[in-house]
Amino acid sequence: MHIDTPLFARHRSRFEQAQQACTDRGCWSPFPETPNRYPDAAQAQAQGLAAFRAHLGADGVDRPFELDQPGTIGTLGAEISPYTQQPLGVRYPQADVDRLFDAAQKAIEPWAGAGIEQRLGVLMEVVERLFADHLFELTHAVMHTAGQSFNMAYAGSGVNALDRAIEALVYAEQAMRAVTPHARWERQFGASTIALDKTYRLVPRGIAVCFACASFPTWNAWPSMMASLATGNAVIVKPHPATILPMAISVRVFRQVLAAAGFDPNLVTMATDSVEQPIGKLLVQHPKTAIVDFTGSVAFGQWVERNAYPALAFTETAGCNTVVLESTDDLDATLRSLATTMCMFSAQMCTSPQNIYIPAHGVRTPQGLVPLQTVARQLADAVQKLGADPKKAAMILATIQSPQTLALLQQLRTEGAARGQVLLEPQPYAHPEFPQARTSTPLMLQVDTTQRELYGQERFGPVSFVIACADADDALAQASGDVTAFGGLTAFLYSTDEDYIARAEAAYARAGAQLTTNLTGAMPLNFAAAYSDYHVTGLNPAGNAALTSLAFVASRFCITQSRRPAREPSPAPQS
Amino acid sequence: MHIDTPLFARHRSRFEQAQQACTDRGCWSPFPETPNRYPDAAQAQAQGLAAFRAHLGADGVDRPFELDQPGTIGTLGAEISPYTQQPLGVRYPQADVDRLFDAAQKAIEPWAGAGIEQRLGVLMEVVERLFADHLFELTHAVMHTAGQSFNMAYAGSGVNALDRAIEALVYAEQAMRAVTPHARWERQFGASTIALDKTYRLVPRGIAVCFACASFPTWNAWPSMMASLATGNAVIVKPHPATILPMAISVRVFRQVLAAAGFDPNLVTMATDSVEQPIGKLLVQHPKTAIVDFTGSVAFGQWVERNAYPALAFTETAGCNTVVLESTDDLDATLRSLATTMCMFSAQMCTSPQNIYIPAHGVRTPQGLVPLQTVARQLADAVQKLGADPKKAAMILATIQSPQTLALLQQLRTEGAARGQVLLEPQPYAHPEFPQARTSTPLMLQVDTTQRELYGQERFGPVSFVIACADADDALAQASGDVTAFGGLTAFLYSTDEDYIARAEAAYARAGAQLTTNLTGAMPLNFAAAYSDYHVTGLNPAGNAALTSLAFVASRFCITQSRRPAREPSPAPQS
Repeated sequence: MHIDTPLFARHRSRFEQAQQACTDRGCWSPFPETPNRYPDAAQAQAQGLAAFRAHLGADGVDRPFELDQPGTIGTLGAEISPYTQQPLGVRYPQADVDRLFDAAQKAIEPWAGAGIEQRLGVLMEVVERLFADHLFELTHAVMHTAGQSFNMAYAGSGVNALDRAIEALVYAEQAMRAVTPHARWERQFGASTIALDKTYRLVPRGIAVCFACASFPTWNAWPSMMASLATGNAVIVKPHPATILPMAISVRVFRQVLAAAGFDPNLVTMATDSVEQPIGKLLVQHPKTAIVDFTGSVAFGQWVERNAYPALAFTETAGCNTVVLESTDDLDATLRSLATTMCMFSAQMCTSPQNIYIPAHGVRTPQGLVPLQTVARQLADAVQKLGADPKKAAMILATIQSPQTLALLQQLRTEGAARGQVLLEPQPYAHPEFPQARTSTPLMLQVDTTQRELYGQERFGPVSFVIACADADDALAQASGDVTAFGGLTAFLYSTDEDYIARAEAAYARAGAQLTTNLTGAMPLNFAAAYSDYHVTGLNPAGNAALTSLAFVASRFCITQSRRPAREPSPAPQS
Repeated sequence: MHIDTPLFARHRSRFEQAQQACTDRGCWSPFPETPNRYPDAAQAQAQGLAAFRAHLGADGVDRPFELDQPGTIGTLGAEISPYTQQPLGVRYPQADVDRLFDAAQKAIEPWAGAGIEQRLGVLMEVVERLFADHLFELTHAVMHTAGQSFNMAYAGSGVNALDRAIEALVYAEQAMRAVTPHARWERQFGASTIALDKTYRLVPRGIAVCFACASFPTWNAWPSMMASLATGNAVIVKPHPATILPMAISVRVFRQVLAAAGFDPNLVTMATDSVEQPIGKLLVQHPKTAIVDFTGSVAFGQWVERNAYPALAFTETAGCNTVVLESTDDLDATLRSLATTMCMFSAQMCTSPQNIYIPAHGVRTPQGLVPLQTVARQLADAVQKLGADPKKAAMILATIQSPQTLALLQQLRTEGAARGQVLLEPQPYAHPEFPQARTSTPLMLQVDTTQRELYGQERFGPVSFVIACADADDALAQASGDVTAFGGLTAFLYSTDEDYIARAEAAYARAGAQLTTNLTGAMPLNFAAAYSDYHVTGLNPAGNAALTSLAFVASRFCITQSRRPAREPSPAPQS
């Protein structure tokens, strides 16, 4: 592959539409939202599956993943498919980290000097190549590492993540365009006029380390990589050891497009590690690390925030996403929507609701007050129904990424039974296509607010808590207070009382969770639309940065200037 | 004072001109650049002097500075005028810090809810009140605390600092306007259409602590305060104990205008301390601190950067600003400009040059190679000449802010004599108006690059080093390398070799010092123009943030959203 036409021109129209979408924040995407609308869908899907299978080991023999990056000192890889519970058999290069940093450092200057349009052109081409040549390969890679369903892997980890990548480019461009490249400055000092020509340069911070998470690797990693690269930095990707393949494919595409466009492919490299020998802290505190993007656990995220200095840190960790159910016009529709959203990818999404706060006296409906116990039972029944239909369960619940999650379910089931009431017992369901799949229907517990220790943190996986609160005001205070204390990305409210809604909007704005009110119907409640929904606020422990806003990009580069006496007289003013 | 007309309308035209200036980065200011052009200058100056004097104690009796902020538990104040070396006799409220935070916290919500234009209107009115009602009062307050000359206090600490305050408002507005307040989002999910109305809110981080420095208090403090306030935060100002009065006057004006516009004046308060009992660390690590703006010493600045988390930190500390003198068309003009700039406010400016790197073989000129020793001698003579004329010295050198600086001069004189050559001995000069003034002419030392320990840090005050380097390339490498290692805000280059200039521009861009090349004439080399020059790059130890860029403002607020089903159908598309 060699690219010699100006890349930005090829993608200008798409980029300008994305800019408009970010301004208006309406609905837009250049990509088909469902796999069946992909161009030549059947053939593309078959090719993608074949490409995925070509990565895998066979007959007990591992297969190396070719990545021509420097400093390879060995191989590693121990991914296990949540669908087959068998090893993928892919071995990735293990790198001498210092050599990755050295190579990245060398690559930066020509990239930073290339100018905004050239960088954007290359990165928009990466987006196009990921979409056109690798999307179904990535879909299967995500399925067999993160454990998502085919549809979610296509959308959430595919086209939606690509949309978010473009969104990051839009904001990077906006922040960089705010700086004029040249100025003429002229002023009187006493009797003389001083005229200076000034040149402003955008200087990247340096090398960014981008941590991708196990359950949704591309979703934050792609936009983070784009934010760093667009502003002239290099990126070292650190995938979660359980979910390397989607990032390895991504890194290879970035490198191919960079090289084809005449840039040093070492602008994007990958540093792999294992659960037994993690290298995360070493990467964060490497003297050449200038930026850290982190998606993952609260514990390590907080360590990153505290210890990244002098590097900048952008984090998304986790929190307990809250639901307040005060009153509704349509209890059935409300509970159906909640149940579906609680089941989506077995609640292994950073936006999945976990804690459902309900007034002890029940929920107001047009049919009168429905007692808490009845609401809890109906919600559990709706969840149970989804899990009981294997085809639906496969679509919605998909699989459990990590065996640890199954252990957590057992532990919480026991604790929950002792401290409250088990509304729904978790159990495996039989996946219709993958009989060996690691699955579980959700665990639902009912407790009161004395059990905050139990629900006052993210419990990663299909676990939810119905929490009895003193009254409607208490429900809102508890829910928004838990977001402030423990973090929260999303929040969901059902109320027919406009005054209550207004107070909830204010409370959640302070707490910093993105609120969805009175939504029922076909859209998953936690669906986050690129170009429209801001992901993470930075106001609570669930993360310190929003994807994507100006603040996410503006500090990834610095502004330097040089000025000298003007060599030509100032042009006459235009009249 | 009560303000009821819409304030932004009153200031719209000025604000729009400032926006244009920030885009073009040409020369613009709404304010007269010299005190004699101030409206009704004579009367205004007399009133300003009277207002300043009215603050002072008399006959050994201190005078309280009235500031009706909460939590006053005592008074303190021990300022000494560098011009008279006598106490000012002003006592400021000492605050119970927790009560300041509590009061600030309560003030935020209506301010944040007021909207962008209303906040900008109030803050533009503050700028106008500072200019129209307090400028000469502030000028004298700066003179008799920081020790600046009358002209510099008027310009650098007065109108230029006000320009920088407006500049911060421009960028704050730009960052906030990038977020639309409302959107309609509509998408198909299967057979049904989901239409959502989305509302986006800008939520301030919380309470900002703004540290002002002793020698240039308003220069960074005003724009930092504006950046925080414009984005909805409250500010607690922590002045340097030696230089409280300019900030006390400022805080009172902010409070008056806020109150007159119907807002809680506790959005801006002042926390004073003493050298003996500093409260800086307590303020930085207060659980309610969300933002820290710091201007001051390297040591405390680095502590702030390391320890402010979870608060955001924006720092400007110090560095060794460098000069590379390789070749010049006009050696006399070059040395005159350098000498003047080295003397300006006795080099107590963060932009003052300190280290002058010259090839050992000398400087190329149209008259041939001038030996290093001759160049050094001529430069020392030019500096000596400025100090020898008391009237010029008073205008340019002004006074020495701190007695510690005199002690440092003595120490460095001794060390310099042992390790190199003393080019110029420091000595007091007799100030024509203030015979008791604390003054010193500059100390100049000549060393070679083995003495890096001596010059490889900011030596605050009138100290400079002529540094003999192996050759021209070594001079550039040493100078830019010292910036990378020890920090540097400004850099100055003289060369007639365009290739050398290009390499220097690249080297200083990497090192992150703002470069001025081949400038001679009436403009002080280190003059930094608001709306045009970026101050600090964030790329080296001299500070982590630029004043003012989008990055300086964009993370001071967060974006929260609420979305709910659209109550009205989407309008038909416009054809």
